[in-house]
Amino acid sequence: METESKETTVHRLRSIAGHVNSIERMVADDQYCIDVIKQIQAVQAALAKVGELVLDGHLHSCVTTAIRGEDPSERERVLREILDVYQVAGK
Amino acid sequence: METESKETTVHRLRSIAGHVNSIERMVADDQYCIDVIKQIQAVQAALAKVGELVLDGHLHSCVTTAIRGEDPSERERVLREILDVYQVAGK
Amino acid sequence: METESKETTVHRLRSIAGHVNSIERMVADDQYCIDVIKQIQAVQAALAKVGELVLDGHLHSCVTTAIRGEDPSERERVLREILDVYQVAGK
Amino acid sequence: METESKETTVHRLRSIAGHVNSIERMVADDQYCIDVIKQIQAVQAALAKVGELVLDGHLHSCVTTAIRGEDPSERERVLREILDVYQVAGK
Repeated sequence: METESKETTVHRLRSIAGHVNSIERMVADDQYCIDVIKQIQAVQAALAKVGELVLDGHLHSCVTTAIRGEDPSERERVLREILDVYQVAGK
Repeated sequence: METESKETTVHRLRSIAGHVNSIERMVADDQYCIDVIKQIQAVQAALAKVGELVLDGHLHSCVTTAIRGEDPSERERVLREILDVYQVAGK
Repeated sequence: METESKETTVHRLRSIAGHVNSIERMVADDQYCIDVIKQIQAVQAALAKVGELVLDGHLHSCVTTAIRGEDPSERERVLREILDVYQVAGK
Repeated sequence: METESKETTVHRLRSIAGHVNSIERMVADDQYCIDVIKQIQAVQAALAKVGELVLDGHLHSCVTTAIRGEDPSERERVLREILDVYQVAGK
């Protein structure tokens, strides 16, 4: 991953971990269940965005290199992996 | 898309359309709401599988050709499109 | 379900079945894979909206009746069913 | 939320925050993008399970109390909130 994307990704994940910690406190403090669920959904959406950022970097580096390369099994592997994460994302 | 995948995809979509028609009848016949919702979710899952099949064919044809080609804007376009559909799938 | 919601639901499902048929033709006509995937995702979103409409009617009728009733197993059943469909929706 | 569910929920959220921290280190250490994405997806699934646990408690407490109560606007509010979180979960 490029340095800038990497720093953005690390920063966002740190912020997400803090968000999860704050939800833990909400539950410990008996805050309203629906507010807890909405915060959990906000974290899931933030994680989805980080996943897109990582996939973006991956497509422009490893995937492009492998597909432009001459090893058919490498090409097949990177395409298979994209399908795998797409399949899980779509569930 | 290869002929075999294409026939599979067409066949599955026809079957899914029939499934949606049967849900329409369930609603018209006042069947139990939760059963209707479960059938709707089954159709959504079936559509997700068709989407994966179509993406599989796309990665092995257009995407591979574009990335192995010499037009940087074409390469960027196919990668951007993968990210677009991944983003929607993850919502 | 109330008559108006029922008609809306039936109408939407009929329109969704037509949409699926049109995607089938897109595939048969070799239209661009990404356009096919985007139409599939549009149908999935339309089905999600129908599911919400059906759940809305269900909560205001069967669920309310059961929870206001005096049969604990009925109350448990309707709550369990909400959790079941919520679980699948969140995948 | 009952004491037992509350402890389970707090415990799971603490574990999830630790998981997010470990993904942050994976990115900082330049680990393989697809492995990072798969861990992100694992955290999203773990959060979905916590959300279900919280909703379960909510349905059996606040929702049941409100629907059995005599305030129609309270009943409407709790049903509306269920629809809201269901709608986001289904995206």
